[in-house]
Amino acid sequence: MTDFAATKAMFHLPQGMIYLDGNSLGPLPLAATKRVATMMQDEWGEMLITGWNKAGWMQKSTDLGDRIGRLIGAEPGHVVMGDTLSIKVYQAVASALELNPTRKVVLSDNGNFPTDLYMADGLLRSLGDDYELRVVDPQAVGDNLSDDIAVLMLTQVDYRTGRVHDMQALTEQAQAKGIVTVWDLAHSAGALPVDLAACNADFAVGCSYKYLNGGPGAPAFIYVAPRHADQVRPALSGWLGHEAPFAFDLNYRPAVGVERMRVGTPPVLQLTALEAAMDIWDMVDMGSVRAKSIELCDLFIAEVEAQCPMLTLASPRDGTQRGSQVSFRFPEGYAAMQAIIARGVIGDFRAPDIMRFGFTPLYIDEADVRAAVAIIADVMGNALWDRPEYKIRSAVT
Amino acid sequence: MTDFAATKAMFHLPQGMIYLDGNSLGPLPLAATKRVATMMQDEWGEMLITGWNKAGWMQKSTDLGDRIGRLIGAEPGHVVMGDTLSIKVYQAVASALELNPTRKVVLSDNGNFPTDLYMADGLLRSLGDDYELRVVDPQAVGDNLSDDIAVLMLTQVDYRTGRVHDMQALTEQAQAKGIVTVWDLAHSAGALPVDLAACNADFAVGCSYKYLNGGPGAPAFIYVAPRHADQVRPALSGWLGHEAPFAFDLNYRPAVGVERMRVGTPPVLQLTALEAAMDIWDMVDMGSVRAKSIELCDLFIAEVEAQCPMLTLASPRDGTQRGSQVSFRFPEGYAAMQAIIARGVIGDFRAPDIMRFGFTPLYIDEADVRAAVAIIADVMGNALWDRPEYKIRSAVT
Repeated sequence: MTDFAATKAMFHLPQGMIYLDGNSLGPLPLAATKRVATMMQDEWGEMLITGWNKAGWMQKSTDLGDRIGRLIGAEPGHVVMGDTLSIKVYQAVASALELNPTRKVVLSDNGNFPTDLYMADGLLRSLGDDYELRVVDPQAVGDNLSDDIAVLMLTQVDYRTGRVHDMQALTEQAQAKGIVTVWDLAHSAGALPVDLAACNADFAVGCSYKYLNGGPGAPAFIYVAPRHADQVRPALSGWLGHEAPFAFDLNYRPAVGVERMRVGTPPVLQLTALEAAMDIWDMVDMGSVRAKSIELCDLFIAEVEAQCPMLTLASPRDGTQRGSQVSFRFPEGYAAMQAIIARGVIGDFRAPDIMRFGFTPLYIDEADVRAAVAIIADVMGNALWDRPEYKIRSAVT
Repeated sequence: MTDFAATKAMFHLPQGMIYLDGNSLGPLPLAATKRVATMMQDEWGEMLITGWNKAGWMQKSTDLGDRIGRLIGAEPGHVVMGDTLSIKVYQAVASALELNPTRKVVLSDNGNFPTDLYMADGLLRSLGDDYELRVVDPQAVGDNLSDDIAVLMLTQVDYRTGRVHDMQALTEQAQAKGIVTVWDLAHSAGALPVDLAACNADFAVGCSYKYLNGGPGAPAFIYVAPRHADQVRPALSGWLGHEAPFAFDLNYRPAVGVERMRVGTPPVLQLTALEAAMDIWDMVDMGSVRAKSIELCDLFIAEVEAQCPMLTLASPRDGTQRGSQVSFRFPEGYAAMQAIIARGVIGDFRAPDIMRFGFTPLYIDEADVRAAVAIIADVMGNALWDRPEYKIRSAVT
């Protein structure tokens, strides 16, 4: 069991704000600022170049990978941090394609986060006209697992609706057709229990700035199944994925296992902030998180539906089919979300009409949910969103 | 003219250390720790997701790109930060290859930093057997610019010896043969004046943790010449390089100009530390840096040669042919460097026998050079390196 009152006390949560957007950027762990400052002063400042060894900077990418690995059911030693999720998607898909050299199609769905599709598209265009990115409706994925497909690339939890793909079943179906799988866990890691090993997943990637609370621009992670880890050729073959980076060989020799998926110099400040977040995650059991998350989401849905009849549920009603977020559709969703944000309840908007709210038991409790709904109901019931200032779109929403 | 006493006062320099390794990892700007802490508390902590707009996080990649652009002669608006140097090499070479679609060869030299070769090799292997990475001796590059070459990929300053390629002449020769150029400025940016626009360079990349002092894992930069910026297809086509990232289109449309070379979510903590470093660089004139750097390097060479006859100069003697570092060869170079480091003079070792010292006028002055040579001469003259403890190789050197 997890003590969520204890975890909540470990975050900086602004006064007068109910933060329901941890699925986009998690809040600041209280210990993070000092930890980064100490790293900067005592390690960068005093050790300088020797910090790579003395302060263990070079190890952070694998140590943190293992700590995240526990949350997603990865075998120890098979997750490594680095780069951004976009880059890791590219690397995973490129590596997966090479495991299936006679096939030329990557299958995905139109509920995937756009950057996954963009990165795959960019890769396939580089490889030639005979490669194809095939994009189908999320519910049609199973029926489209044909034996011309090399790679199935899916995001487990839909970023807009929270709909969850059945990772176990789709992986099994895909593999039965000789397809290699790449799972994006952006909205899964820290949101719901994932068991990569039990699902027999081939590759998985994810980011650490959402539910994991690593901070803006925190690095991504990549998982390679043990059976592939010593076989794959990392298309992005950088020096830190070399067997002996500091031998400065002219020829690339991949490191043992998932280490070969490292590319360039790791972002030590970001990794240090992420360590503070993982100190909290180390106290947490994903089963407890999932149970509490479903409870909070169910309560939110019930209260919003009771108080805001103009909002239409866009997420699955069945908690087991939903990630750790709840979305509603509303034609003036952008303005409505701005008006709600102006009242201190932070959710976000996703085009064309999705109002999205994330529920993260580490720092959101039942009282927060009730208080948030009271504000949402007030804004919606009194049409407070129908003011010009809420309709001006900002660059980032 | 630059006031180097003023810039020196803006760095944290450890007591009892003379730091001649700023070409590997620059020291901590005094303002950086507070700046990052403030960003973490007041922006991440208080603004949370709204920090992307309110605190200008999304703009940092281009704003910092312009500030670095001034040091490397880039036209404003044509440099953007992101990822690591390895990733940016890949992106530049992939984009450059597509500008030259009938050719299949990338030419480089064996003095290039290994990761550049690894990344290009990884890319070319993905593209197929008809692609070739051709690696020649640095001095043979000019003679090998044949018209089957698509891309010339060079690092301007050799990381081991400091030997400088003639960027202007090689770019001109290459372009006369229809070759697209990619310049790696890892050991150039902040080390010597670079004029990308005057050289008519096509692509350039570099890192910000060496001479630019952005901290361990600070992001890379990429330059695309204005004539190519709206033409190139970024092989790594991520959502932040999309024309409208927050429209969440399923199809990729590149952003205007160099913005399309952005990939994923930027590392805001690292970018904030880099801002503190760039506040110092904004006070600096690269002509003054170059003049002072040559003076310091010349002094170091003269003093070492006078006091340490067992060391053989590995760098060009002519300051105009050398970056901002001096290297000496010594068969027991590894142990010798460990012994020197133990005495507080920090340089580094590069296999097989290179002892490397960086000179960075922003915080190294003549008195530092003389004091460093006195220690080096003592270690070498008394063979202090010939102790077992200095011969044990650590993982990172």
